[in-house]
Amino acid sequence: MKFCSACGAFVDQRVPAGDTLPRYICDGCETIHYENPKLVVGCIPEWGDQILLCRRAIEPRHGFWTLPAGFLENGESASAGAVRETLEEAEARVEIGEMFSFYNLTHINQIYVMFRARLLDLNFRPGTESLEVKLFTEEEIPWNEMAFRTVGETLKHYFADRKRGAFTLHMGDMPPPPSPY
Amino acid sequence: MKFCSACGAFVDQRVPAGDTLPRYICDGCETIHYENPKLVVGCIPEWGDQILLCRRAIEPRHGFWTLPAGFLENGESASAGAVRETLEEAEARVEIGEMFSFYNLTHINQIYVMFRARLLDLNFRPGTESLEVKLFTEEEIPWNEMAFRTVGETLKHYFADRKRGAFTLHMGDMPPPPSPY
Repeated sequence: MKFCSACGAFVDQRVPAGDTLPRYICDGCETIHYENPKLVVGCIPEWGDQILLCRRAIEPRHGFWTLPAGFLENGESASAGAVRETLEEAEARVEIGEMFSFYNLTHINQIYVMFRARLLDLNFRPGTESLEVKLFTEEEIPWNEMAFRTVGETLKHYFADRKRGAFTLHMGDMPPPPSPY
Repeated sequence: MKFCSACGAFVDQRVPAGDTLPRYICDGCETIHYENPKLVVGCIPEWGDQILLCRRAIEPRHGFWTLPAGFLENGESASAGAVRETLEEAEARVEIGEMFSFYNLTHINQIYVMFRARLLDLNFRPGTESLEVKLFTEEEIPWNEMAFRTVGETLKHYFADRKRGAFTLHMGDMPPPPSPY
């Protein structure tokens, strides 16, 4: 950030009075521009013992498999965001259930929230951001072709919980990866 | 938003190619400036059958009671944010437990996440944003002096869950209020 989005003057990074962290502050109108983590919301669409995955048609991780998920928009609840992303990426209709996983990705200022979801019909097909959309049993999951660690971790916990017959919320921190992905 | 924070040129609101919502886009460098909801994180500090509340020394809701909570910062996990806010507002040390409530406030683009927490000692005192910090039993809670609906709802569910001996995650939408608060 170099310029004030309110008045166009230069911004400066310093700790405002009464605050503890450096913020971008406008040299002209003195507006403080806070920056905060973003929420990524998505779901695990269930159809019997199968799970719907999308193969990404976009970067990052083009060609890899993911659960439908994306940035929460202003004016949108977390579950509404998960419904929208599933419709956009898989043209699939879901009913959102319980929150299933919550991961902190502090190195990229993101929080991932994934919900369990009931797939409502089989009229899904790839949205513009997907190459392919497909139902998988546990045995068929392409574990080595997962787009994101949050998705792999969520699915691992999902199948483990299903095996023991009880789903709980999984919270955790996802440390910086060894590679960029 | 009137100016691009990257280059200082004017921004324009329109739907980018391949997108579905209007965004602020720079007339000069074409940077797209996304705006997303912010997370407010806090906790319910428990000491035996008592709960720690703070009386606000700042607006909004100066003089009203709240659970310690505030905006999550970049680089911070949700539970670390709740610990920090509790230290700032009540100078109290807590150990964060399970997620207890998750509220969508779509009219102000905020999501509230509150955790159960164990107060570690009794050396708390008002931080600069609090007038008073105090332990309350259920009977003593000042229900008519709650700062925010998210706090009142969280406490109601908390005491109901405690009574039945089982805590669960409470998710919900908080509609626009009849009054500004």
